Amino acid sequence: MIIDCHGHFTTTPPEVMAYRARQVEHFQATGQCLPEDPPEISDAQIHAAISENQLKVMQERGIDLTLFSPRAIGMDHQFGDEATNVRWAEYCNNLVDRACKMFPQHLAGVCQLPQVTGQKPGAAVFRELQRCIQELGFVGANLNPDPSGGHWSDPPLWDKDWWYPLYDQLVALDVPVMIHVSGSCNPHFNAVATHYINGDTTAFVQFMMSDLFKDYPSLKFIIPHGGGAAPYHWGRYQGMAIDMGLGDLTTRMFNNLYFDTCVYHQPGIDLLLKVIPSGNVLFASETIGAVRAVDPKTGRNFDDTHEYIKATQVVSDADKEKIYQHNALGLYKRLGQHVRKA
Amino acid sequence: MIIDCHGHFTTTPPEVMAYRARQVEHFQATGQCLPEDPPEISDAQIHAAISENQLKVMQERGIDLTLFSPRAIGMDHQFGDEATNVRWAEYCNNLVDRACKMFPQHLAGVCQLPQVTGQKPGAAVFRELQRCIQELGFVGANLNPDPSGGHWSDPPLWDKDWWYPLYDQLVALDVPVMIHVSGSCNPHFNAVATHYINGDTTAFVQFMMSDLFKDYPSLKFIIPHGGGAAPYHWGRYQGMAIDMGLGDLTTRMFNNLYFDTCVYHQPGIDLLLKVIPSGNVLFASETIGAVRAVDPKTGRNFDDTHEYIKATQVVSDADKEKIYQHNALGLYKRLGQHVRKA
Repeated sequence: MIIDCHGHFTTTPPEVMAYRARQVEHFQATGQCLPEDPPEISDAQIHAAISENQLKVMQERGIDLTLFSPRAIGMDHQFGDEATNVRWAEYCNNLVDRACKMFPQHLAGVCQLPQVTGQKPGAAVFRELQRCIQELGFVGANLNPDPSGGHWSDPPLWDKDWWYPLYDQLVALDVPVMIHVSGSCNPHFNAVATHYINGDTTAFVQFMMSDLFKDYPSLKFIIPHGGGAAPYHWGRYQGMAIDMGLGDLTTRMFNNLYFDTCVYHQPGIDLLLKVIPSGNVLFASETIGAVRAVDPKTGRNFDDTHEYIKATQVVSDADKEKIYQHNALGLYKRLGQHVRKA
Repeated sequence: MIIDCHGHFTTTPPEVMAYRARQVEHFQATGQCLPEDPPEISDAQIHAAISENQLKVMQERGIDLTLFSPRAIGMDHQFGDEATNVRWAEYCNNLVDRACKMFPQHLAGVCQLPQVTGQKPGAAVFRELQRCIQELGFVGANLNPDPSGGHWSDPPLWDKDWWYPLYDQLVALDVPVMIHVSGSCNPHFNAVATHYINGDTTAFVQFMMSDLFKDYPSLKFIIPHGGGAAPYHWGRYQGMAIDMGLGDLTTRMFNNLYFDTCVYHQPGIDLLLKVIPSGNVLFASETIGAVRAVDPKTGRNFDDTHEYIKATQVVSDADKEKIYQHNALGLYKRLGQHVRKA
């Protein structure tokens, strides 16, 4: 079985994002939550949005199950207040939930949190997390380390007052969390090209240089997009860790940390698998996502990461099985139940 | 001959940085430039600072010549006003100049610019650039793409009003420019672990997605630290370039762009050289710099990048000669003259 730990519902009908645009516009004009119900999306629309896109690609590429969350760039925490963003997160998570229940063999839910820039994650965030995990049967959550959208103006991930109460909730629910920024409202950063990758690297160094993993020995984080720049600069980070008296970086990081395989060329995947222990790599493609092009050199989509893992000679077939499924089944504890149900 | 295109004068006597601390403190308290001359540093102090550190390491590692600039984290553009930062840049550049004139076979100067956050580079920046290139004989300059120090609050590198006048100066002087951030005053970003690498990736995407290279076909940029995350995510960027109608990324970028080899482990260097044309890679180690530790696995310093280039089988010996010297001699046009003089 092949589990893709990183897929977003990017093919929702256009009225979904149009609603968010109205919500943001209304909030910016009035400071209030838009008094309008989100548009109804029919079962047929959801079925078509999945079967003609996500599921089609999964079947072409031999992917059995995708951990599926709302569109990352659409989480949009840089806009809105709590009421606005709770409503938006509930709506997006419910669409994912309906897709998952429609295709239970192929999709398992991961939730968007109703974070708000400038506001410490509190009861509203915890409530939506609990609802998604306990009521909807989701298996994980996405956490935005920069709800300001490229201004990085809220506290870093090691801030005890700001973030630890959310970590307590994640531990209590026993779910792992993927670090994933959303859109950028800073003109320096293209969202998917710059902000995503910088966000990953930033989170990695915050984990490395803080006591977060000591304080939460059982909490598990996934850094997507192959860990940002961390594997490419592993020597730099290992060297700095020694300079700072932090010891061996692999030992320090990999009780709590996983990288996914959203790296879209063979040399990048080979590097990732050379540097990072196979027990800490999760298969993923972020399909249908940031990159839709076909590589003219291979005739295949850049984001068809299954091909790179098949082709790599850096790890054994047994290690590839860990990456394809065993690591994910061990990490997402609620997934085993889901897979058995399916 | 082996040319290291990226070294900083990090071993100045402690009174140098102490002066900057007083300058910043005075400016923050009064809004005025500290009315105090920078401390005199003797020839003997400079000689010792170089011969016991930079030169010693170069000789141990077989590096003939280093392109030498003031300490990057000390450029400190996030603090001070124009008068303060001009004085600081002149002082730092003069120390580099004295070191270069003391060891002309081994050091050639690259200047710090007196940038100021929130202020468009203008006459004061151009004057110091001209002084360093035309009077002191420096061969290049470092440009900070984020003078705000991790807030990224000034305009991006493609902003015509903000940056193009400085590019005009660089073209007129016919010198290449290295993109290099300085310190971080954003708690999210450790300067050398996060901000440096994110800054590189950010600049890469700004170059990729703008018309800057079309507008300045003869201007040459170096992105240090192996191009940030770009080579590791080359498939992502190539795919996005196709999605955006920007064509082949190698063709698009490498008339104007070079990456250095400040990547501190063998798999990272191998990836860099697999993905990036050898004609666009410059040997560098950023010694004595960010990482001082010895790799317990190899018994050598992490930043001894010469060893990785020697060991790599990814490129030919002829390509290695390009990386060691020919690319730099072609790129830094004023270096040929310097090398002949020496």
